Amino acid sequence: MTSKIKKIGVLTSGGDSPGMNAAIRAVVRACAYYNVECVGIYRGYQGMIEGDFKDMGPRDVKNIINKGGTILKSARSADFRTKEGRKLAYDNLTAAGIDSFVVIGGDGSFTGAEIFNEEYKFPVIGIPGTIDNDIYGTSHTLGYDTALNTVIDAIDKIRDTANSHNRLFFVEVMGRDAGHIALNAGIGAGAEEILIPEEDFGLERLVESLKRSKDSGKTSSIVVVSEGDKIGKNVFELKDYIEENMPEYDVRVSVLGHMQRGGSPSCFDRVLASRLGVKAVETLLEGKSNFMVGLNQDKVTLTPLEQAIKGQSEIDMELVKVSDIVSS
Amino acid sequence: MTSKIKKIGVLTSGGDSPGMNAAIRAVVRACAYYNVECVGIYRGYQGMIEGDFKDMGPRDVKNIINKGGTILKSARSADFRTKEGRKLAYDNLTAAGIDSFVVIGGDGSFTGAEIFNEEYKFPVIGIPGTIDNDIYGTSHTLGYDTALNTVIDAIDKIRDTANSHNRLFFVEVMGRDAGHIALNAGIGAGAEEILIPEEDFGLERLVESLKRSKDSGKTSSIVVVSEGDKIGKNVFELKDYIEENMPEYDVRVSVLGHMQRGGSPSCFDRVLASRLGVKAVETLLEGKSNFMVGLNQDKVTLTPLEQAIKGQSEIDMELVKVSDIVSS
Amino acid sequence: MTSKIKKIGVLTSGGDSPGMNAAIRAVVRACAYYNVECVGIYRGYQGMIEGDFKDMGPRDVKNIINKGGTILKSARSADFRTKEGRKLAYDNLTAAGIDSFVVIGGDGSFTGAEIFNEEYKFPVIGIPGTIDNDIYGTSHTLGYDTALNTVIDAIDKIRDTANSHNRLFFVEVMGRDAGHIALNAGIGAGAEEILIPEEDFGLERLVESLKRSKDSGKTSSIVVVSEGDKIGKNVFELKDYIEENMPEYDVRVSVLGHMQRGGSPSCFDRVLASRLGVKAVETLLEGKSNFMVGLNQDKVTLTPLEQAIKGQSEIDMELVKVSDIVSS
Amino acid sequence: MTSKIKKIGVLTSGGDSPGMNAAIRAVVRACAYYNVECVGIYRGYQGMIEGDFKDMGPRDVKNIINKGGTILKSARSADFRTKEGRKLAYDNLTAAGIDSFVVIGGDGSFTGAEIFNEEYKFPVIGIPGTIDNDIYGTSHTLGYDTALNTVIDAIDKIRDTANSHNRLFFVEVMGRDAGHIALNAGIGAGAEEILIPEEDFGLERLVESLKRSKDSGKTSSIVVVSEGDKIGKNVFELKDYIEENMPEYDVRVSVLGHMQRGGSPSCFDRVLASRLGVKAVETLLEGKSNFMVGLNQDKVTLTPLEQAIKGQSEIDMELVKVSDIVSS
Repeated sequence: MTSKIKKIGVLTSGGDSPGMNAAIRAVVRACAYYNVECVGIYRGYQGMIEGDFKDMGPRDVKNIINKGGTILKSARSADFRTKEGRKLAYDNLTAAGIDSFVVIGGDGSFTGAEIFNEEYKFPVIGIPGTIDNDIYGTSHTLGYDTALNTVIDAIDKIRDTANSHNRLFFVEVMGRDAGHIALNAGIGAGAEEILIPEEDFGLERLVESLKRSKDSGKTSSIVVVSEGDKIGKNVFELKDYIEENMPEYDVRVSVLGHMQRGGSPSCFDRVLASRLGVKAVETLLEGKSNFMVGLNQDKVTLTPLEQAIKGQSEIDMELVKVSDIVSS
Repeated sequence: MTSKIKKIGVLTSGGDSPGMNAAIRAVVRACAYYNVECVGIYRGYQGMIEGDFKDMGPRDVKNIINKGGTILKSARSADFRTKEGRKLAYDNLTAAGIDSFVVIGGDGSFTGAEIFNEEYKFPVIGIPGTIDNDIYGTSHTLGYDTALNTVIDAIDKIRDTANSHNRLFFVEVMGRDAGHIALNAGIGAGAEEILIPEEDFGLERLVESLKRSKDSGKTSSIVVVSEGDKIGKNVFELKDYIEENMPEYDVRVSVLGHMQRGGSPSCFDRVLASRLGVKAVETLLEGKSNFMVGLNQDKVTLTPLEQAIKGQSEIDMELVKVSDIVSS
Repeated sequence: MTSKIKKIGVLTSGGDSPGMNAAIRAVVRACAYYNVECVGIYRGYQGMIEGDFKDMGPRDVKNIINKGGTILKSARSADFRTKEGRKLAYDNLTAAGIDSFVVIGGDGSFTGAEIFNEEYKFPVIGIPGTIDNDIYGTSHTLGYDTALNTVIDAIDKIRDTANSHNRLFFVEVMGRDAGHIALNAGIGAGAEEILIPEEDFGLERLVESLKRSKDSGKTSSIVVVSEGDKIGKNVFELKDYIEENMPEYDVRVSVLGHMQRGGSPSCFDRVLASRLGVKAVETLLEGKSNFMVGLNQDKVTLTPLEQAIKGQSEIDMELVKVSDIVSS
Repeated sequence: MTSKIKKIGVLTSGGDSPGMNAAIRAVVRACAYYNVECVGIYRGYQGMIEGDFKDMGPRDVKNIINKGGTILKSARSADFRTKEGRKLAYDNLTAAGIDSFVVIGGDGSFTGAEIFNEEYKFPVIGIPGTIDNDIYGTSHTLGYDTALNTVIDAIDKIRDTANSHNRLFFVEVMGRDAGHIALNAGIGAGAEEILIPEEDFGLERLVESLKRSKDSGKTSSIVVVSEGDKIGKNVFELKDYIEENMPEYDVRVSVLGHMQRGGSPSCFDRVLASRLGVKAVETLLEGKSNFMVGLNQDKVTLTPLEQAIKGQSEIDMELVKVSDIVSS
């Protein structure tokens, strides 16, 4: 390819997720493959503002494909939300000869990229990296598949002890305003009920369902609760409520927390990261900008950043029904 | 639904794979949900011939969603290839009041189902279960995603020791005549080269590539070799060949073997199994027969068994290119 | 051996822990090996009171050595604390021909066993099963080694995200009044500080230490907090305190919770369970009673139940110093 | 401590094992704690001969406690077996101001250290690092506990498929001339038979045992074979032999191979590495030399290198009996 692009920056921004390192590696190596330079930008947009750059070649990203977190570090940058901050960033990029960048992150990071592109016509491509899978324009975000496996591993362990004691557990999982993690990991973990933001379940239906579960001979139960669910009570309040209304249950709570954000990425996430990283570089080299690379129907596709930001990632209602059936 | 189907049999056949238990659970519970009876058939078609049946209700499949293998056992049945064997099977099914069945297995198992259906007009639905992902009509077979994770875990460990000693490893993975496992796990494990049946790589290109790898500063290398590759030498012969032609390399071989077929299924495989199991039952209840349920572009679809058997599952050539780029 | 013992009961009691199933298996198979009968008693002492028994042979315990939880279920029994409850239990045991039992559990379970033995001269042996490692007379309790690995796996994941964001995490781990899990997993996870009940650390020293850590160039920190620590604040209060006094830190909290009690046991726990289960049966057959089998200096030994209950399991102060040194 | 030791070298030598990085970290940080300098020596004795050194401070070993392999790389050095090689090594050490070293490795590495010490009176301490656990003077070598867990994880997976098909598997594990891995992992994996070098089992007894196993109702079997066993046939020949003599068995072979040498170390290995690393530095600072630090009866102890080299690490015959009993 002949292209005006000569030096591509790469950064990770916002919450980190497994697969970000694999994506950095793919961007760096695709640059080498296509004979353009590559520069790592540390700590997201904040590092762009502070000029925290490092030239990167293929050997700088060896043995990171299987590592969680991000070697470029990540941060949220208040300064980048200001005109002055973005000006500094632009000056630093230009001074370093960087003429485009790939940002790996969520919709907040994409919004920053879009505004920057608008102001400076600076070529930019986004790679969706978040465990929450809450980005429009891709069936899978980087880290989502890994997080699902982390969650079911944890719940498998919890079920061992739940079964031994005939207990009811409320397990809170991440996902922000999206129920993807809860719904899929809930099915995968064999949860009796799954509370997600997309469905207003209601306390009465929960009690109803737990009663039916008990009547059907189940001696222990797991209820997976998305951190963003709309039932109006947090997991600890849910525990109190159930213990009051169903004294036959011995209830426990587990909030899985930040371990969901780490860990060695699954094969799926490593392959996805490799595909998206390569495509991001190729897209810049083709002279395009302002797109998010994503996965749709198993193919790598482009979605305008604006759509990715504004669009709504929806859960698959087929799965809600499947969950009802297999938890019977 | 109103339907003539009253009692559904379920069996696992051929090589086992992670997720088969989750699929059995989904079939059993979907039967309960739709108020039809369900019967487990042990040891595949052989158990059908021997009348090795057991009535199954929702509680019989508790706590199996996370278990590898198959609680119904599996086997290859020579008898079912004979007209007499199939007659016995039919008589047993009929005597037990079973009026349809769901078979979880690979194309050999589907062929048996199709012949049986042809002879006896017996309603049957197939669920693709094999780690090899070599079935037409579904982007993913049950167990494939789990096997990929098993393989990269093993190669991550091998890389630890390869790096410490600056060694070259040939790692043989499963997949029969298909390179899906090798290609995806090879990318995921950061392999320097991947030898698959779909690509005639040639020994010279391998030597070439390893030399380039060495020159680029790599101190250790992993070459992933599919068991069905066409390079004309097995992994041990490859080792000898490279040691002769590239004495600078200290070469080791690892054949991952049957551990790839076991283990607790990944979240992806558990959810897929749940979806396919439910859909298999629903399809029978809708009066349909002779289909395989599968996943296409993230949706559950039906493919005529005949096509599933005859069609060719192809690898994604985009991935071959991605592999070349990211291993640079 | 010739012995008056003809039929041994086995039960799990109190909190469950990984390795209990492996111990049940060993007890059952040792009974078969020595030609005595074996009976599983469900739900701990409560099942003894309710006569919830099942004859067990070698095939009844197949494929459980690698399973977390306990197939015999566990429970805490208020009834067994009453004379009437124990009378019922004795009558049930006698009626079933059971002449001795092995109880797998913690000191509460041993206390029950000792009182029962005192009242009815009923031969009994204890096997220490708890993740907390807080039992005198054994260097390791069943499940402790597994729990340590579960904790470091979780903290490894948390560190991925801590590193990516330069954060401080307080991670609360189990252990009741003992710091074994916190101290060992803290060293294993590379924690900057470890708060255990056996050491009154003090908030000032914590602040001091975190400052030193920051000054030495550390960009992220993990503080492991035992649930029984004596610092006077729970993890959430600690977070608030540090954020107030060290605003340079972005602090997060993770309470690992019940996943620590489950999971497939480590090799160490499986072997230990096998050794203790065999020894428990052999000890009964030798006509002894009222002992706990345990591990001391790598050998299986006997400790009088009374001592096991009253004695104090102490942490190794060498480890406290090692922790200080390696976290520098 | 006041001491003549001012600058300690640290190297890993021979086969690598999980926990070596944790030991390097402990040595480096103990040096910092006691205010002496520390130098990493790359690629074992070969790097000593080539002067491949790097000054190391506490931050150089961050985030390696959980990594398999060795950041210092390892190698076997033919040159160090020559007087000239050792002279070069001595000159390099002296030129760099290094006045003592800690070598992490097996008995071959210790032999090198001892000869070097004899020739140059150079203070040296050994840390036992090998998965084989074949070193006299320590109950556990670094990496052994991790390898046991790796092996049982693999065999758990193999058992899934063995059970599904009623098969017999021969699984070959590492251990050189010692049966520690085979014996302990065999018990942990619930193997029906375990073939170790320390016991001359005999083919007939194997056949006998498999027959008994079949008669007792077992439908699948795992036989763990140590790579150094004395039965006179390798695993592939064993397969042929059994298939000829017991045609009722469908036999498979799995050679676990080098994955046993890698992986993130277990908590046990990380803590052990931390203790031994600290003790190695303290021992040098106390003016002692020519010892191996090891674990005995849960305490860190010193064993003269000479004894460690000549002594025989023996297996615990109690375990052989336990294995017979629990596999019944």
